[in-house]
Amino acid sequence: MYKNAAYLKKYFLAHREVTKELVEKIDREHYGYQPTSTSMTAEQLVVHMLTAFHQFVSTAAGKNPENLHEDTENVSLNELAERYTQADVRLIESLDESALDETIDLTEMIGKKVPAWKVIEMAVDHEINHKGNLFVYVREMGYNQLPMFVK
Amino acid sequence: MYKNAAYLKKYFLAHREVTKELVEKIDREHYGYQPTSTSMTAEQLVVHMLTAFHQFVSTAAGKNPENLHEDTENVSLNELAERYTQADVRLIESLDESALDETIDLTEMIGKKVPAWKVIEMAVDHEINHKGNLFVYVREMGYNQLPMFVK
Repeated sequence: MYKNAAYLKKYFLAHREVTKELVEKIDREHYGYQPTSTSMTAEQLVVHMLTAFHQFVSTAAGKNPENLHEDTENVSLNELAERYTQADVRLIESLDESALDETIDLTEMIGKKVPAWKVIEMAVDHEINHKGNLFVYVREMGYNQLPMFVK
Repeated sequence: MYKNAAYLKKYFLAHREVTKELVEKIDREHYGYQPTSTSMTAEQLVVHMLTAFHQFVSTAAGKNPENLHEDTENVSLNELAERYTQADVRLIESLDESALDETIDLTEMIGKKVPAWKVIEMAVDHEINHKGNLFVYVREMGYNQLPMFVK
């Protein structure tokens, strides 16, 4: 199998490292920035990316997602990105060949059952989509030297 | 092998169909829309998505990309999306198991050689990234009922 944990970890980090570079550019005064009144704010978007990925990967590993921050905690988006990324890497590393082939029931979320490796691919696709949103947000914050979409 | 042409075609179209839905919302008067002065215009972004995917998939199939439109032709982005999507589906369908395992030299583009199936995955990731940009553009054009990022 060419879709092993090492491959998936590298694939995830090739995108997450770029997410983290974009997040580093978002100053606290821009956390509430939204391109339109119906858009997520920059902070909501980043928290959604981090928690959704963690939820997908926890589900793939048959675990309950951890809550890695309290609403009352005044933690930066950079710190949150660091915490979630570390937890997600540990989860992916825990998946051996048979765990990756395990069928995961996503009936409630997407109406079907898929193998665990596919859940992780879907999680990365979700990250890429919202990172694509974030590129526009960050450019609108005044940055025009932005990284490639994948490392 | 679970990564066969049927799987990759379905994976591609699950995203391209959403791209096409977004493109349908872009009126001609918005073709020149750009979120910032350093951004691609909506038209440039869509043409980049279509031609880059076609280039990736042609390379994966060991063929030269076709030029499916002339600069002088007054063709709509919808029509272009249709043309490129049809050509790309034919290319993906042409790839049998051994063609998908063929090593493709992307040294000039990304500094390495990868199997053909991986070139197609990278092409879809590139599409997802820029579709993520396009979601923000289209919302900024005044639409707030937008599709899910994948079908």
